[in-house]
Amino acid sequence: MKAIAIDLGGTSIRAAVVDREGQILSRSKRATPAQYGVQAVINQIKATVEDALKGFDVADIAGVGLASPGPIDTIEGVALGLPNFPGFDNVPIRQLLAEALRRDVKVENDAIAAAIGEWRFGAGRGSDNLVYITVSTGIGGGVIADGRVLRGRRGMACHVGHLGLFPDRDVYCNCGNRGCWEAFASGTAFEKRARERQGLGVNPDAPSVFAAARQGNSDAIQLVAEEAHLLGLGIISLLHLYSPDRVILGGGLSHHFDLLKPGIIAEIKQYAMLAFRSVELLQAEQVDNSGLLGAAALVFGTA
Amino acid sequence: MKAIAIDLGGTSIRAAVVDREGQILSRSKRATPAQYGVQAVINQIKATVEDALKGFDVADIAGVGLASPGPIDTIEGVALGLPNFPGFDNVPIRQLLAEALRRDVKVENDAIAAAIGEWRFGAGRGSDNLVYITVSTGIGGGVIADGRVLRGRRGMACHVGHLGLFPDRDVYCNCGNRGCWEAFASGTAFEKRARERQGLGVNPDAPSVFAAARQGNSDAIQLVAEEAHLLGLGIISLLHLYSPDRVILGGGLSHHFDLLKPGIIAEIKQYAMLAFRSVELLQAEQVDNSGLLGAAALVFGTA
Repeated sequence: MKAIAIDLGGTSIRAAVVDREGQILSRSKRATPAQYGVQAVINQIKATVEDALKGFDVADIAGVGLASPGPIDTIEGVALGLPNFPGFDNVPIRQLLAEALRRDVKVENDAIAAAIGEWRFGAGRGSDNLVYITVSTGIGGGVIADGRVLRGRRGMACHVGHLGLFPDRDVYCNCGNRGCWEAFASGTAFEKRARERQGLGVNPDAPSVFAAARQGNSDAIQLVAEEAHLLGLGIISLLHLYSPDRVILGGGLSHHFDLLKPGIIAEIKQYAMLAFRSVELLQAEQVDNSGLLGAAALVFGTA
Repeated sequence: MKAIAIDLGGTSIRAAVVDREGQILSRSKRATPAQYGVQAVINQIKATVEDALKGFDVADIAGVGLASPGPIDTIEGVALGLPNFPGFDNVPIRQLLAEALRRDVKVENDAIAAAIGEWRFGAGRGSDNLVYITVSTGIGGGVIADGRVLRGRRGMACHVGHLGLFPDRDVYCNCGNRGCWEAFASGTAFEKRARERQGLGVNPDAPSVFAAARQGNSDAIQLVAEEAHLLGLGIISLLHLYSPDRVILGGGLSHHFDLLKPGIIAEIKQYAMLAFRSVELLQAEQVDNSGLLGAAALVFGTA
């Protein structure tokens, strides 16, 4: 049996046919017509799935898994007001998609889906307790605890980007609150600090700053050290709250994992409680595919 | 069948015989001889259990549940260095107790045990997703997520007191780190702020300050408002991380729940993400018995 996996993103929709071993047998991608409303997005998902399915025996497909941005009630399958998706407010996305695709659909928050993908097919294999963190435009996460996916009410657990890092500072987050971890440590926040850095001498985008740090640019090195410090502070709270044996870093900034890891580890060794310091910090292995593979695992019942 | 439940505290050991409905049929209490070392504590637990068991048919006892302070590996049953218990460093407490009592023993972190007690027999009945927080000398917690106890690696999840509330402030915590939630919002921290309050006019202990607030003392009212604010800040992070439908407040400060609740709710309504604001905030019902009842639930296999 094979699964159809869908990763719904703000700019593109990706679909794949995936087997039980996590092999991606085919894939497709289309632009997300978010501005055209709910039906346009559903239609485009359907077209993307049809692209991926070409040449496959439909009798061999076990079902459909969707990794969706949140906030979404993944237990009921209802989008609760997706930012950047006008009209997706109390929309029964699972039901609409099931009708469009004429198949059973399972829905997961995209960062939890990515955590599942790493757990089953990536850096989390064999672990019963892991925290996955994606650091890109924002910060998202997913947790496996006691060998099971942690979902919580409405499947909305692990909004780790909205851990209050400095909740008394007037640094505003996209969620409306102040002081969220995401507002300080996301890729967006990193690039904002880079823009504000006088005399940096390179473009203030993440790839350029990390490249400059590799070449010894001391301002870039300082920016990377600050980022590792800010990531470390949040990760320490997550260690105490979830008690993982592994922390897996994904998302855009994780492409520079080797430069960030030493600073994060130093923070953990200094400030985490003793019994929590031996946690492993790992780079995501499946990178852009984690979410698709997690969506497939939902179909196979291994999540 | 009945269970023997033990609550190991820094000053006293309590034991009880508990039935499946959570009724405490007998109870006993002895001083904790922590300063005399491991064997003295084990012997005293045994004597306390024998007190509670008097008059009961031992054939009717299903097993023993222990709520222990942490850090403790509750999966392996090994104390990892209990503060205030000299010598309890890598001590196989479950095995020692099983030998002393000649019975099967299950071990849980005391705050997780209290969460289980509230879940099965208190304010958490019927909930699949709850966060229990005890605010006393320190801050501890336990989480039920997706209808199961959240334990994590070594059973050490939910050290919620060591969420970094203001991790950049030089306010030191008993754990060695700075800025932990516990260092700002525990009963101990509350009383410290009361002592520092010029012209408070009452004893700076929590019961006196709350009583003064009830009588309209404006400084006391301000101290209570600050406490609610600090509790609210931490609780908001926990909402985003665990997605509970209920938050249950236990421990010493929860005796003044009616005065703290409005300020905490106001904080949640203002700063939690929209989809998380409908959480219920409740006072623990079993208060001092939550831990014992949770320990009993371990024996009955309902946790």
